[in-house]
Amino acid sequence: MRDAVRRATLAELGECGYAGLTVENIAERSGVHKTTVYRRWGNVEGLISDALELATDEPWPVPDTGSIKGDLRGIVQLVRTGFDDPELGPVSSAFVAAAMQNPDAARALHEFFVARHEQSAEVVRRAVARGELPDIIDVREVIRVAVAPVYYRLFVAHEPVTEQDADRAADAALAAARAGVL
Amino acid sequence: MRDAVRRATLAELGECGYAGLTVENIAERSGVHKTTVYRRWGNVEGLISDALELATDEPWPVPDTGSIKGDLRGIVQLVRTGFDDPELGPVSSAFVAAAMQNPDAARALHEFFVARHEQSAEVVRRAVARGELPDIIDVREVIRVAVAPVYYRLFVAHEPVTEQDADRAADAALAAARAGVL
Repeated sequence: MRDAVRRATLAELGECGYAGLTVENIAERSGVHKTTVYRRWGNVEGLISDALELATDEPWPVPDTGSIKGDLRGIVQLVRTGFDDPELGPVSSAFVAAAMQNPDAARALHEFFVARHEQSAEVVRRAVARGELPDIIDVREVIRVAVAPVYYRLFVAHEPVTEQDADRAADAALAAARAGVL
Repeated sequence: MRDAVRRATLAELGECGYAGLTVENIAERSGVHKTTVYRRWGNVEGLISDALELATDEPWPVPDTGSIKGDLRGIVQLVRTGFDDPELGPVSSAFVAAAMQNPDAARALHEFFVARHEQSAEVVRRAVARGELPDIIDVREVIRVAVAPVYYRLFVAHEPVTEQDADRAADAALAAARAGVL
């Protein structure tokens, strides 16, 4: 049942966004009775948080290209293409919007990014082990600095993000890591 | 009248956020009749866009410390302390939230950031003129990379932003600019 409700939440988020989300529509789409949905999830924010909690546990395809430059570019391109994806993009954007308006969703999204940073930082740890980067490095901060310009363009400055923009963001984080400021 | 309505919009945004904004409350607060507000601004999104348009024309205190390191740190600290400010912070956050949900607000916020990037890029141009940075540089991208981690922590990963985090973001952008990747 949890999985059906979660899939319905993601589908509704993708179609209607956070602003258009209702417990009734999710219940109907999932085939679960709405009183059950209300009892177990409380409200749309509870449904969003639960969907994010499941997403947090999912591994994502962290690149392993053999070089930190290729790996960081791969990570930033994954973020960019994810938001470009016609199915995944609107759902991911809806999570960001929901978290801006609701503290429960914000906590769930925070946990999602803690997990995401931790998984992605593996490429930095490997680079340190290979001697590509100095070892006194905040491995998670390299990931934050690499992906931040993509999110900034999408959700703050509302600018398009080209493939080149994404590569440049990755290269900037790498230059900072090499310079020892991260 | 435009200024009264704008001040009322900012005050309501600060108190109630985007989700709580209504034309009626803004009209009442401004002392302008609500039919006039509806006729001239249309809806809350029109009011938000107009308030942003006025903010776009305002100069902001771009630092001039004599070094690019000090100037970039100054800019990123201005962003950080702006969101920390009990009056300004909620209004700025409400603009970001509104732009995520409404295309008109997104366009207005985009224009705001075009102006902001252009004003801030002056510190990079001065550094190039002083010979502190290579001159084949995308001056606006240095600003984007410098401020992006602050916005990313606040609005995406929902993490606190310390003074040290802000300095480090500025230093990372500077290292990337010096390395010639921006």
